[in-house]
Amino acid sequence: MPARIHNFGAGPGVLPEPVLEQARQDLWDVGGSGIGIMEHSHRGKLFDRIILEAEADCRSLAGIPDDYEILFLQGGASQQFAQVPMNFLAGGATADYLVTGVWSQKAVKEAKSIGTTHIAATGEAEAFTRIPDPGMVHWSAAPVYAHLTTNNTIYGTQWAAEPEVPAGVPLMADASSDMFSRPIDVSRYGMIYAGAQKNLGPSGVVLVIIRKDLVEKAASNIPLIFQYRTHAKERSLYNTPPTFGIYMMGLVFKWIQAAGGLAAMGQRNEAKAAVLYQALDASAFYSTAVESGSRSRMNVCFRTPSEELDARFVAEATKAGLDGLKGHRSAGGMRASIYNACPAASVAALAAFMQEFERTNG
Amino acid sequence: MPARIHNFGAGPGVLPEPVLEQARQDLWDVGGSGIGIMEHSHRGKLFDRIILEAEADCRSLAGIPDDYEILFLQGGASQQFAQVPMNFLAGGATADYLVTGVWSQKAVKEAKSIGTTHIAATGEAEAFTRIPDPGMVHWSAAPVYAHLTTNNTIYGTQWAAEPEVPAGVPLMADASSDMFSRPIDVSRYGMIYAGAQKNLGPSGVVLVIIRKDLVEKAASNIPLIFQYRTHAKERSLYNTPPTFGIYMMGLVFKWIQAAGGLAAMGQRNEAKAAVLYQALDASAFYSTAVESGSRSRMNVCFRTPSEELDARFVAEATKAGLDGLKGHRSAGGMRASIYNACPAASVAALAAFMQEFERTNG
Repeated sequence: MPARIHNFGAGPGVLPEPVLEQARQDLWDVGGSGIGIMEHSHRGKLFDRIILEAEADCRSLAGIPDDYEILFLQGGASQQFAQVPMNFLAGGATADYLVTGVWSQKAVKEAKSIGTTHIAATGEAEAFTRIPDPGMVHWSAAPVYAHLTTNNTIYGTQWAAEPEVPAGVPLMADASSDMFSRPIDVSRYGMIYAGAQKNLGPSGVVLVIIRKDLVEKAASNIPLIFQYRTHAKERSLYNTPPTFGIYMMGLVFKWIQAAGGLAAMGQRNEAKAAVLYQALDASAFYSTAVESGSRSRMNVCFRTPSEELDARFVAEATKAGLDGLKGHRSAGGMRASIYNACPAASVAALAAFMQEFERTNG
Repeated sequence: MPARIHNFGAGPGVLPEPVLEQARQDLWDVGGSGIGIMEHSHRGKLFDRIILEAEADCRSLAGIPDDYEILFLQGGASQQFAQVPMNFLAGGATADYLVTGVWSQKAVKEAKSIGTTHIAATGEAEAFTRIPDPGMVHWSAAPVYAHLTTNNTIYGTQWAAEPEVPAGVPLMADASSDMFSRPIDVSRYGMIYAGAQKNLGPSGVVLVIIRKDLVEKAASNIPLIFQYRTHAKERSLYNTPPTFGIYMMGLVFKWIQAAGGLAAMGQRNEAKAAVLYQALDASAFYSTAVESGSRSRMNVCFRTPSEELDARFVAEATKAGLDGLKGHRSAGGMRASIYNACPAASVAALAAFMQEFERTNG
């Protein structure tokens, strides 16, 4: 099989190679059925086993309590930005948002077309280079929920731990870019959602973990397809689900399990990130705008002394087989996305390239 | 590679084997990029070429006029059941629905949570065994749109041609189960949508073809993610699209092109259906409840003289490598789904099996 290059893309991102190898086989014929994985009915026995296993593996991986539903939906996190307020922000209620970047801002924008929002904290004045300190968070009087983005791909920041939320207020989290990259205490959340395309699988499927009492309380006067209740009741089979995406997510769950689970994944990701941050800290050539306590272990953003050198870095890295390092257009510089499936060898190759680039351009 | 069996499943259904073979390669490394198709950024050059080609091939296949947008969205037809009225059924307006089965009924149900609906015709009294005659259609005074389901998978009925709609009223069609199975005059429609998983690709991507003036007129007070305007403006890249599904749909479009386009596909599908309907008509053992002018070329529904024999038929067919023939649970009997990618050889094998089963059980 042809050689693959180092992929630091921000998403859709690199997938585990054993998962890809399995998928290549199953595309033609899965489990000796004589039918490819994409061609099986979502109501058949084979797919039923796949979705049940994916749910069970998800639950055991993260120790998800029984009072949470696990749903596999469509539309990505962007649709959840609308679906969360459609389900929970009715009448004259207020929802509180912690704004740590563009994705949080988009979530606020969608919520505003449904109801009243309150910005409990925002890092906008500091160009989103840090996660708000606890002292900077000001909740409204009685929010129906609090919403945050756990990791911010564009700026390379990440919440080190969940913020304290007023008692009884469910915390809703967009964890698209760090889901299952480390252990997670699901009981801290009312709902967690994550587009698959960074740590969990291909784009087109979004994992939703939601407390059952919230499912019951959610709006029932909106279209059925947008009610969490509908999908909980039908075990994500109300309409034809993205069967291949769910299958892939299931394979990734098994790959994480085999690698030692979320604790091992967390250690591995911490070690990968440490290689890059240590290289940045040891260098006078490279810099990062991110406050040290807010650094993301998923997206490491950095720059050289000039935009010209940034462009040269990206171009030469691409030539050297290190792909996807250009920073987001709104942030500039470089960004190395080092999600679960990014091998330590890719990170080592990048660190070596950085050193060599500094030597010849520094 | 292992042998594959005959797949008559109603969807997700059989895919063209050359498409599967290409996908197996590209999963690991697409176009010599050193990165698999699912791992490429949706903002990168490679995927940009894929989505532009898919759109161009779609447009040329069906002769889609320039005043129509082609969108690749998520959530399947079921989400469109809600999205159509959210975009077009505001205020005190009325939308007219032609009801030919469960899918039309679901579309009505979602529309009712948004606004006022009028049932212009329904086949419910005849158990949906026929498409309404023109004389049975009664439009409301000034519908904002008319909605129909072009093919009804559960009952095996299909509109032979578009019904006449009052002048100026846009016709919205759920064509999930017969899209691109024959030539289509897109100019007869305001909007056509189709979940991919029957004739166009894997589940998880829905093709939307919509007139540009409707995009402009649509509601702007709903969440951005549900506005057709948003996706038209961003060329289906507003949020991370289901990249693999769009890639697969693009391959299927090229496969249809190579097979001679929609005219050839229509002839081929007509010939496949004729084999089965002729077998049914020639037999006193098999019967079909569908009125002859309403017969679907996609889903051929039939039964034996008894439920016991139906069950035996399905069981023995499965053993003989003919899969997916059990009728929908609400209809009973048998159903052979013979979408674009179902080979003529599969249909011939089924006809031979039917004959042999009648000989031994008739």
